[in-house]
Amino acid sequence: MISLLDLCRRIESGALSPNDALCESLATIAQADSEIGAFVAVDAGVRPGGAGPLQGIAVAVKDIMDTADLPTEYGSPIYSGWRPKADASIVALLRRAGGSVIGKAATTPFAFLDPAATRNPHNTAHTPGGSSSGSAAAVAAGMVPLAFGTQTGGSVIRPASYCGVAAIKPSFRILPTVGTKTYSWSLDTPGLFAATIADVAYALAALTGRDEMRIDQRAPEAPKIGLVLQDFAGDPEDASREALERAVSAASRAGATVIDLSLPDPVSAAFPEHPTIQDFEVRQALAWEYDHHRDALPPILRESLDAAQGITPVQYDAARRITNRARIALRDVFSDCDVLLTYAAPGAAPKGLSSTGNSRFNRLWTLMGNPCVSVPGLYDGADLPVGIQVIASFGADDKALAAAAFLEKAIQDYQS
Amino acid sequence: MISLLDLCRRIESGALSPNDALCESLATIAQADSEIGAFVAVDAGVRPGGAGPLQGIAVAVKDIMDTADLPTEYGSPIYSGWRPKADASIVALLRRAGGSVIGKAATTPFAFLDPAATRNPHNTAHTPGGSSSGSAAAVAAGMVPLAFGTQTGGSVIRPASYCGVAAIKPSFRILPTVGTKTYSWSLDTPGLFAATIADVAYALAALTGRDEMRIDQRAPEAPKIGLVLQDFAGDPEDASREALERAVSAASRAGATVIDLSLPDPVSAAFPEHPTIQDFEVRQALAWEYDHHRDALPPILRESLDAAQGITPVQYDAARRITNRARIALRDVFSDCDVLLTYAAPGAAPKGLSSTGNSRFNRLWTLMGNPCVSVPGLYDGADLPVGIQVIASFGADDKALAAAAFLEKAIQDYQS
Repeated sequence: MISLLDLCRRIESGALSPNDALCESLATIAQADSEIGAFVAVDAGVRPGGAGPLQGIAVAVKDIMDTADLPTEYGSPIYSGWRPKADASIVALLRRAGGSVIGKAATTPFAFLDPAATRNPHNTAHTPGGSSSGSAAAVAAGMVPLAFGTQTGGSVIRPASYCGVAAIKPSFRILPTVGTKTYSWSLDTPGLFAATIADVAYALAALTGRDEMRIDQRAPEAPKIGLVLQDFAGDPEDASREALERAVSAASRAGATVIDLSLPDPVSAAFPEHPTIQDFEVRQALAWEYDHHRDALPPILRESLDAAQGITPVQYDAARRITNRARIALRDVFSDCDVLLTYAAPGAAPKGLSSTGNSRFNRLWTLMGNPCVSVPGLYDGADLPVGIQVIASFGADDKALAAAAFLEKAIQDYQS
Repeated sequence: MISLLDLCRRIESGALSPNDALCESLATIAQADSEIGAFVAVDAGVRPGGAGPLQGIAVAVKDIMDTADLPTEYGSPIYSGWRPKADASIVALLRRAGGSVIGKAATTPFAFLDPAATRNPHNTAHTPGGSSSGSAAAVAAGMVPLAFGTQTGGSVIRPASYCGVAAIKPSFRILPTVGTKTYSWSLDTPGLFAATIADVAYALAALTGRDEMRIDQRAPEAPKIGLVLQDFAGDPEDASREALERAVSAASRAGATVIDLSLPDPVSAAFPEHPTIQDFEVRQALAWEYDHHRDALPPILRESLDAAQGITPVQYDAARRITNRARIALRDVFSDCDVLLTYAAPGAAPKGLSSTGNSRFNRLWTLMGNPCVSVPGLYDGADLPVGIQVIASFGADDKALAAAAFLEKAIQDYQS
């Protein structure tokens, strides 16, 4: 994988030109992507942006984010060859920071559950996860130092876990969704993929102007960690259970305090409300597609939209009230600890490309809007990556990143 | 003006065909719009939708809402001739209810303050208000029975007041913004214009499936009204002061209780935070337009965007915290009354077309997300309309509409 920070340092020192950095990515894509399928469009004429913290950085942009100079197809033949007029806001922020869109990353259709054609770079017989399939795979395969994705259920943290890369789903609306195809306006959250936690943090700071996100210039302090097993979401597979156990051992050995933590009842009670909110909103968000192109929708999405037509405003309003109570109750949890630690996914990437895996350990946190980070570095018996998920209070993305970096290093030290 | 409910009754009884209802609107537009300038595009081939509560209803859709079959230009030459791929969600909901888009209503560029070319039907030397200029004017001139607009500061309630029509800015996100050009994602709220409060309520019920919004089948009860003068927003002109006084007299005579009410300090404290949130978000929402077409932006918007580049994330986060505290404090206000009553605008529509008026009596309520209704029926000494504004607690759009209908009738009875 390409470390974004390493690349920036080489560019800043003059050892590498911004243009050569982009060309290296183009060469890797040309060499590797026929097997992986991370990209649906590549800009062979990509050029460096102006001076800025991301100058020379090639970014894979999920293809539900509008680009004025590349097609944007939302993973669907309904939008075949579609060319938006303007860049999505997150793309405009990237260009302001000097970064370059090297291509559009494969997405599941409209970022739901029907798989994209992308393969997992760690084992091409396995899914990379979804819906940000191409974004996670492009970073994992060393094609780009940074990729943009989105999460409505678990579409950032899950593919990061399956592909063994670092990722953040920041606090809700810290990164803008303008110009990104809407699935659920209460849930859709842009996220970032990179090789390491420090890389992700640097990119988030560069895009948002929130310099406190950076963690590359300070040693992370030992955090107080609340261990959360999310029983309401069912049992994990052995791979995820063992990964979490090893992370706890590593963190403890490195000096962190780890306490077992039960989520308050109002928080657990919100878990089953996620689909009600998501489905009631997508039935409006994709109303035109459903009414005019139902037969061109992929089967899982079409069935989900069929079922969603029956949800009532009363059910939706009740789900929002339960969610609001949960958000308030969740604040108190962070008086006992700096961050929460839990599973990033039920296990390693499932075999086959017919499913993108399951978001049951991610959904609640998307609904709450809290920052979530997937920490790389752990593997199952078959050498497939297994992430762990760090969660901080709303707006404390810097704390989530610092604790994730602490865990990332603790895991490296523990295994060496 | 055309009453939506009257039209629906005539269509339902067979006295009028849906197609003839649309043709009547086309004829009125052809006759009157060269003087008013409410429309930027008209669909001369408009056809009735399928069976539904809005079948045969011609709707003027603000031109920041995407339509697949008509150009969508956001009031800006940057988007001259632009044709989106899909309908905005609110347009798709309209078609599901059987309604028809008869044309695109003039909007100020990107729904900010630079005026559109539309004139006030009550006196063409005066502004109709903005940013939903064409939507309010099209209803006021009797061209259509229903129009869609949006409000980020005061862009629904203010033009409704200036044009003497009924309008609702519903609770935040009860009507979807998907496919509507974003200015500020925390503030942008779609709204509806029609001849009477009952018409607006019927349309809102038809679009959302929230039947409790309808008020045409029950007599409104006398509400307990909290009178709010919004001192923090400055003094009103005589026209608005007198309109509010007459509304209070009419309401009291009709049996309503009216109490003087001071907003709690945390609520008033949020008033000056509106521009910080709006401007920090629009700087991201219109980043592509600013970076690629700054010279094509109109002067007021361009200056505002220039200034917005200096707002820091720290200032934005502080504004959001103050806003959240205000929303919580505002809930308690409604334990003392059913609705609030206040000015809809500083006065009657200003003379000239160089300004669309001022949103200072609307901004706080957009920021709070509460449902706001402008009640028609009052006029100043020059026979220009002056609205009054009814506000209910979040989610209680039915209460706002019922109290507004009570006031609408009380004002009619008082003046006759």
